[in-house]
Amino acid sequence: MGKEASDKLEWKINVDGGTSEKEILMPESGPFHRIWQGLKIMLRDPIFRIRKFLERAWSLAIAEPKKVIHGFKVGLALSLVSLFYYMRPLYDGFGGNAMWAVMTVVVVFEYTVGATLCKCINRATGTFLAGSLGLGVHWIASHSGDKFEPIILGTSVFLLASAATFSRFIPSVKSRFDYGAMIFILTFSLVSISGYRLDKLFEMAHQRVSTIAIGTSLCIIITMLFCPTWAGNELHSLIHSNLEKLADSLDGSVAGYFTSNCNHDFSKKMESYKCVLNSKAAEDSLANFARWEPAHGPFNYWHPWKQYLKVGSALRRCGYCIGTINSSINSEFEAPEFLKKHLHNACTTLSSHASNVLRELATVMATTTKSSKINFFVGEMQHAVKELRNTMICLPNCYPTTRPPPPLECDGKAGITTKATTLSMTEILPVATVMSLLIETAVRIEDIAEQVNDLAEQADFKPATSKKVQSVKN
Amino acid sequence: MGKEASDKLEWKINVDGGTSEKEILMPESGPFHRIWQGLKIMLRDPIFRIRKFLERAWSLAIAEPKKVIHGFKVGLALSLVSLFYYMRPLYDGFGGNAMWAVMTVVVVFEYTVGATLCKCINRATGTFLAGSLGLGVHWIASHSGDKFEPIILGTSVFLLASAATFSRFIPSVKSRFDYGAMIFILTFSLVSISGYRLDKLFEMAHQRVSTIAIGTSLCIIITMLFCPTWAGNELHSLIHSNLEKLADSLDGSVAGYFTSNCNHDFSKKMESYKCVLNSKAAEDSLANFARWEPAHGPFNYWHPWKQYLKVGSALRRCGYCIGTINSSINSEFEAPEFLKKHLHNACTTLSSHASNVLRELATVMATTTKSSKINFFVGEMQHAVKELRNTMICLPNCYPTTRPPPPLECDGKAGITTKATTLSMTEILPVATVMSLLIETAVRIEDIAEQVNDLAEQADFKPATSKKVQSVKN
Repeated sequence: MGKEASDKLEWKINVDGGTSEKEILMPESGPFHRIWQGLKIMLRDPIFRIRKFLERAWSLAIAEPKKVIHGFKVGLALSLVSLFYYMRPLYDGFGGNAMWAVMTVVVVFEYTVGATLCKCINRATGTFLAGSLGLGVHWIASHSGDKFEPIILGTSVFLLASAATFSRFIPSVKSRFDYGAMIFILTFSLVSISGYRLDKLFEMAHQRVSTIAIGTSLCIIITMLFCPTWAGNELHSLIHSNLEKLADSLDGSVAGYFTSNCNHDFSKKMESYKCVLNSKAAEDSLANFARWEPAHGPFNYWHPWKQYLKVGSALRRCGYCIGTINSSINSEFEAPEFLKKHLHNACTTLSSHASNVLRELATVMATTTKSSKINFFVGEMQHAVKELRNTMICLPNCYPTTRPPPPLECDGKAGITTKATTLSMTEILPVATVMSLLIETAVRIEDIAEQVNDLAEQADFKPATSKKVQSVKN
Repeated sequence: MGKEASDKLEWKINVDGGTSEKEILMPESGPFHRIWQGLKIMLRDPIFRIRKFLERAWSLAIAEPKKVIHGFKVGLALSLVSLFYYMRPLYDGFGGNAMWAVMTVVVVFEYTVGATLCKCINRATGTFLAGSLGLGVHWIASHSGDKFEPIILGTSVFLLASAATFSRFIPSVKSRFDYGAMIFILTFSLVSISGYRLDKLFEMAHQRVSTIAIGTSLCIIITMLFCPTWAGNELHSLIHSNLEKLADSLDGSVAGYFTSNCNHDFSKKMESYKCVLNSKAAEDSLANFARWEPAHGPFNYWHPWKQYLKVGSALRRCGYCIGTINSSINSEFEAPEFLKKHLHNACTTLSSHASNVLRELATVMATTTKSSKINFFVGEMQHAVKELRNTMICLPNCYPTTRPPPPLECDGKAGITTKATTLSMTEILPVATVMSLLIETAVRIEDIAEQVNDLAEQADFKPATSKKVQSVKN
């Protein structure tokens, strides 16, 4: 009993921390003071959250001003479309249907030009197709008697809506016409159902089509004229920055492994490959939208956007490898120092040549110019791979010079007492893994180089200007 | 000149392939036949495409009948909502505003219950908030004189639309309230702009809110009563199938490396880890929608959906490792046969123990029951890792018994002529890599087991029933 009481007491005293308990116990805490304390506690959390939210919004706005501009563009488009209401003649022409223009702007205006165009074309096509089909069904229904009319209309809505909804799951439809299918269902339902009640169906359809046309064209004009954000451009610079991130990550990982000087900068660099691994969804959607865009900047209409996806997947494959190198760094089994020292130079050379290749490819992307040096860099990397292999082959013979003589028992195992003994597998294993992962990374970087070269070829990048450095190897 | 002519001739003869050329040259080709041929060629491509498309749709329908059912559910909801038009009393009540109910159904009805609920709640909240704000702004504007009214309305639309559009980029808003923000912009624009012209604004707002309420409740009822597809369930079974895929992939990879019997089944198994790597986006969105769902099946409202994301990312980390093992299989440098034979048993044991762990975790997910054997399996896997390490440590001493005597030059390098010589690094490297990747995979599988156990703990899975097998290790 006594223990229980003391437990309770302890629990009571410790609740809410010492300070707040003290405040409540203090004699000067009148009712107002108490209410004030309670309010402070109640308000602290939401105010703190709101401040956090605003801070995050502000830092996003600083980091990506384009997104703020997009907000203003939408505001501008809506203000323009509201002129339909404010100006008498326009309102008299369209009446309540002007609402469709407002709705079109809100729904269709997307961040990139490609996405906006995709939605506009989908909306227009879907509305047109469904509108014509709806009118057709309405005509058939109205000629088949009062009894059958709702049955025909209801059945057609049920069947077409089901089929169109299912079609949205088919990958080829989903990637390009998802929104169009939705608009098809919407318009068809509205037209065929409204037709049963509204007499001025044709007029309504005409007004709807023209308001949608006004909304979409307004969106297209604003999105393309005021600081346009091209999906193609975004994809291009995403691939460019991913190339640089991989190069940073590779450098950081190898340096981290050999120097074990993992400060904040290093670990941030090492982790940057993770962005590459997670960018698949963004690449897919950007490539999908880029296809709808007209020629802009260095990209013409037939720009090989699909090839960017191949480059992206090659980058990710390389990223997996770098990720595995990274996790070897944190492995519990560490390689002996003398082995690390022995391999330090060869590894660092390979990684710096490999990241040179990646940086040169990043330059190819940044300048949209074919590189005259890429073959040279790839050759250097391949040479470094060979050097690393050679360093490893001569490993078992060279360690006694860099390491104090191994204990006798180890010699005893081999059965002979000489200076040259075998390294145990546990000693070799961690280094061997990092080596062969590095070599595998180099192989995958060659693949990236091939894909980027293919891209440069297909997209007709400008030919390289300097011809001093010619391909040495490869 | 002659060459050019012959070039042209050659080009002419080879065009369209030999067979079609023959058909055109045949004497019986009258004008009808020619037109028929031309039509056939013109029609072949689109007809072929349409057939392909339908075949793909059919196979999707067979593979995932739930998606067909979803189509029918949307059709049913639209048919029900069209009753507003067909039945006189309802139409008299709502008039043209019944359109909003149709629109709500089309826009809000999603594949999973969670996504539908999320959109419904977003739509309702967005409409309500923006409607009240719009009415407030409209009241202020109407009391500030004819001159200022359009200015106040226009400015408020511009500012609020810009801010709300920008807020959609903030990650915390984007993941949960993206649709709500869009509806907010739409409703606010409509209300504050329409308010300038329409006199019966309150009536319109009331009708809009009630039609939206009817549409959303209809969607919620149909999506939850007829064969509901729960996002939580989908996420749960996605993680379950990913666990099994990883197990298959691991088994396939190790078997493929040691038996080099890469038939179709093997390579299909080996590749299944790729699904795991690409499922991040699906997991994120399912977990996001699952949060909105009420309790269903074994999942209560506070089910730890976030923990699924942790399991998913642990699975992907393991997948990267298996992917790297896979690429080592196709490496140009193959390990010598005797080394492979020597390690075959230890590796296969480890991989089978590791995949046992994964399969047991899959059973935990499938039965939502805590496992009594998982610690035993993890212990076995850790033991297999130790065994593999031991096998590797004794490697340099044991190969002469399993391999024909090595050539003299190799002995010459070591400087002594004995039976026991060192293995060269190039021989060890490929095997060592696969070994240490396998060990790394085992480490990552332990992490998966930990995450799944955490999940079982947090989600209060049923306790294990059989207590025969107790935890042996760990």
